[in-house]
Amino acid sequence: MGTVNLFGGIEGGGTKFICAVGASPDDIRREERFPTTTPAETLDKSIAFFKQAETDFGELAALGIACFGPLDPNPASPTFGFILPTPKPDWSNVNVVGILKSAFDIPIAFDTDVNGAALGEWTWGAAQGLDTFIYLTIGTGIGGGALVNGKLLHGLLHPEMGHILLPHDSQRDPFEGICRFHNDCFEGLASGPAIEKRWGQKAESLPPDYPAWDLEAHYIALALANFILTLSPQRIILGGGVSTRKFIFPLIQQKVEEVLNMYVQTSAVKEKISEYIVPPALGTRSGMLGAIALAQNGLILAKV
Amino acid sequence: MGTVNLFGGIEGGGTKFICAVGASPDDIRREERFPTTTPAETLDKSIAFFKQAETDFGELAALGIACFGPLDPNPASPTFGFILPTPKPDWSNVNVVGILKSAFDIPIAFDTDVNGAALGEWTWGAAQGLDTFIYLTIGTGIGGGALVNGKLLHGLLHPEMGHILLPHDSQRDPFEGICRFHNDCFEGLASGPAIEKRWGQKAESLPPDYPAWDLEAHYIALALANFILTLSPQRIILGGGVSTRKFIFPLIQQKVEEVLNMYVQTSAVKEKISEYIVPPALGTRSGMLGAIALAQNGLILAKV
Repeated sequence: MGTVNLFGGIEGGGTKFICAVGASPDDIRREERFPTTTPAETLDKSIAFFKQAETDFGELAALGIACFGPLDPNPASPTFGFILPTPKPDWSNVNVVGILKSAFDIPIAFDTDVNGAALGEWTWGAAQGLDTFIYLTIGTGIGGGALVNGKLLHGLLHPEMGHILLPHDSQRDPFEGICRFHNDCFEGLASGPAIEKRWGQKAESLPPDYPAWDLEAHYIALALANFILTLSPQRIILGGGVSTRKFIFPLIQQKVEEVLNMYVQTSAVKEKISEYIVPPALGTRSGMLGAIALAQNGLILAKV
Repeated sequence: MGTVNLFGGIEGGGTKFICAVGASPDDIRREERFPTTTPAETLDKSIAFFKQAETDFGELAALGIACFGPLDPNPASPTFGFILPTPKPDWSNVNVVGILKSAFDIPIAFDTDVNGAALGEWTWGAAQGLDTFIYLTIGTGIGGGALVNGKLLHGLLHPEMGHILLPHDSQRDPFEGICRFHNDCFEGLASGPAIEKRWGQKAESLPPDYPAWDLEAHYIALALANFILTLSPQRIILGGGVSTRKFIFPLIQQKVEEVLNMYVQTSAVKEKISEYIVPPALGTRSGMLGAIALAQNGLILAKV
């Protein structure tokens, strides 16, 4: 048996952290999840997890962190590896990469949770072989990552797709939105907490024939249409809590076609939309596996 | 004096074609513009222009075409070089590259007018040194091109940024929009013809203190905010007729900051927005020079 490089991955979410060690979806040696509390406690637990894993499985080749944001993913920046100012208590300006680097002297890759998930789906999931696509999560928050021209999209910093502004007909939907920055942006209207506040019931418990879903699909379709027109993705992967309700996909697909109104002239959008807007092939593991994929990528870049 | 490669460039617009021969902004040997009529007449005139130029200046190294769309820019596609079905009479399914290829056996690059302009600004203008930025034109129509991760953005086909959907408060602005596909999309609300129809006067003739401009800046700011949140550009270059009205830039910059509401945490957006949303450095020549830049790029790719 040849030696397999083992990688550490952290899916750092706003409510929970998932740490894993492995090399691929079929080779995850250990996985642990715990609530996101203070930075010190949460990162200490992560370090302890990987130290124990190194004792049990041998040294890790690299570490990948797919983290909630906003964050600085630019290795050339003085604040690379930091969480940027965030409303999340205690986490503003935390040097996540620096803290892990002091415990593990190996390449450490750092990106948004959604860019991580995008990379996971590109490496092993629903985006294999594509060079330009979007991974969107719709759940507690809404966020989007993307690979464009074969590389993860950062640009100025990183996308914040959940906060785009959409048509909002207050006759049809008088709900004012819950985004603390923009009120009725996409996240303000269509995230899990927005659904819960509007309908007085958690999204998970709303039955498929409840009017909430037609409105939800409407906003998601408006957002996807804007993403298609702006970024021209070859596919859109929809993850997060909402995507676990499979009945919403045909609704979204139909409404995207209605909104675009034959404007984007490709068979992908006109005839094969069921293969164009899809759930993650890695299911709920996109983020964790994406962190492993970030680590693999980080090792390759470190060797260049 | 060493030999300089000479390139042919076509800026193919919906109302006029501009043909040019040269090597750079300071070395344009000849330039001609004529109205866009039928494909046969328009492309024959273009061919005659370049044939005469070859007689006078020597052989061209490559040709670049920055064209109105929708079009197929993918060299691997069977319809590469074609205009796709378009409401513009006679131009649907015209094989632009094929017709020029039968007259000139040299590398021919083909892309959207706005991707061409983006490449021109990247090569010689306001986007030098960037790897991710947007070039937007606001005039008779609205369109956007982009370079992302160092390459022109195509993805599925090419972006259609002019057609994104925006919040439209019909109390403030009862105008229904003029887009034949989407009514009140960005282009439907904010293009030159939309301004003219809403205010009963051509945009060029509206004075700076006319209320049209505050509303126009409002829609442009909403669109730019969405582009920033989706694509995370390092800069946005605003070309087209509207951008010749310089007083609109501070209005747009201020409104983009208001709309984003401190959400994108970079000094580019928070403090240096006057260097972030800018007019084209090449002025009205971005498209023509972009076509020359496409030709140069095409020659490089053909030699790989």
